[in-house]
Amino acid sequence: MNRQELFENIQRKKSFLCVGLDTDVTKIPEHLFDISNDPVFDFNKAIIDATAEFCVAYKPNLAFYESIGLEGWDILERTVEYIRTNYPDQFIIADAKRGDIGNTSAMYARTFLGNMDFDSVTVAPYMGEDSVTPFLTYENKWVILLALTSNKGAFDFQFMKDEETGERLFEKVLKTSLKWGNADNMMYVVGATKAEMLSDIRTIIPDHFLLVPGVGAQGGSLAEVVKYGMNSQCGLLVNSSRQIIYADATEKFAEAAKNEAQKVQQEMATYLSVFD
Amino acid sequence: MNRQELFENIQRKKSFLCVGLDTDVTKIPEHLFDISNDPVFDFNKAIIDATAEFCVAYKPNLAFYESIGLEGWDILERTVEYIRTNYPDQFIIADAKRGDIGNTSAMYARTFLGNMDFDSVTVAPYMGEDSVTPFLTYENKWVILLALTSNKGAFDFQFMKDEETGERLFEKVLKTSLKWGNADNMMYVVGATKAEMLSDIRTIIPDHFLLVPGVGAQGGSLAEVVKYGMNSQCGLLVNSSRQIIYADATEKFAEAAKNEAQKVQQEMATYLSVFD
Repeated sequence: MNRQELFENIQRKKSFLCVGLDTDVTKIPEHLFDISNDPVFDFNKAIIDATAEFCVAYKPNLAFYESIGLEGWDILERTVEYIRTNYPDQFIIADAKRGDIGNTSAMYARTFLGNMDFDSVTVAPYMGEDSVTPFLTYENKWVILLALTSNKGAFDFQFMKDEETGERLFEKVLKTSLKWGNADNMMYVVGATKAEMLSDIRTIIPDHFLLVPGVGAQGGSLAEVVKYGMNSQCGLLVNSSRQIIYADATEKFAEAAKNEAQKVQQEMATYLSVFD
Repeated sequence: MNRQELFENIQRKKSFLCVGLDTDVTKIPEHLFDISNDPVFDFNKAIIDATAEFCVAYKPNLAFYESIGLEGWDILERTVEYIRTNYPDQFIIADAKRGDIGNTSAMYARTFLGNMDFDSVTVAPYMGEDSVTPFLTYENKWVILLALTSNKGAFDFQFMKDEETGERLFEKVLKTSLKWGNADNMMYVVGATKAEMLSDIRTIIPDHFLLVPGVGAQGGSLAEVVKYGMNSQCGLLVNSSRQIIYADATEKFAEAAKNEAQKVQQEMATYLSVFD
């Protein structure tokens, strides 16, 4: 999916919501284990069917699938295929946070952007250029590079200031990586818990899309994210995982997820009215 | 495996070689596809049987297994099981370079250190403390944190100097992470291509084991690594992947791998004679 298509989907659906499929086998409704031989996939399917109308992206978190081994990897593949087949206008993110020396990153790129037809993959910047650029060789596919993350540990290194330039590490990541790609094949992760930083970030990358986690369970505010982060093509994908997919633990889980997604979408619609 | 056991294995086998199982389906000998229904696993099995005598550790690189999908994940699981069953004195490293917010890192930790019985997993430091500490909750298991990597992209961020302290980022990673774990549950990745940096690094972490990639195909020198990096308990695991496992592409691949591993081991034995 290219940037224009993504923006058109956002305008049409009046949403820039990304639903995080952090599907934890210990957290999905118990009744699913009684009525299904494939409870984790069926959970995903139900969540996707319930929320697709209100979101423009899905983000399976790889850790949750890998933690159930072989079966988990199979469920991940079928989940991507299910979204691709039934909701072709969804942008699909492999939240994998990969990054390794060039030939290894090339393998990860092939896995997620070649074999598995994700639109994008999250990548960690620590190892620099050759760990990131192999992901940029697939047409209309995206790297989503970690810049300023939503967790407490973000303060350990990401705010370190460069002796020469005074730039903080996350700013250096933004500036340096501008040489590797552009607003048509790179996005950045910027946590909603640090929304006030978004104005500084927008001076460096005015045009790029940002993937913003941390609204919801982690405490970030959507209004703040929009205030400081929205650009002329929206430029935001705001992720919510637990608050939507675990809204309810009974037979009504999908309906509850739908209601939560719709609630977020309605708030987003008001912010998107500037594009009408 | 604890630190004392690892050092004892190193002394007994006169080796601190780690063989990297970067098993690429496009690079393994072609005849394997004719004689086996399980060529990738059979390649690993043959390489392990041929080299186990000369090394103390194996390091499957996850990217290579994920790139062949479901089957690859299965091969990875069986490879770990095969090593664990047949060569219980080997230290097994999941070269995964994971790292995410706390609850997600906990999932990755469960996958590699709980479900899959690896001894250790490589972790990227960019997201800070809560992305690393969940891996430290498994007894006699290890985090191997990226500090100074062997690739060219290492220069993009890892050498950035802190305005306040003058420390470079990789040094800040070493110092900061000393508060999270200790020499009995953390090791660090330090690339052999930057061996001269090892003296500086040893002033910060005199006791920790280092996992050193980059000897061989990437051009690092074993003698330099030993000169600047060896400590009183050896403190080194030097990895070689391509130079050993792809030493030959014919029916004699395992024998060639054995010869390459033995050659490295013999050089290591001379360096280890200081412990006799």
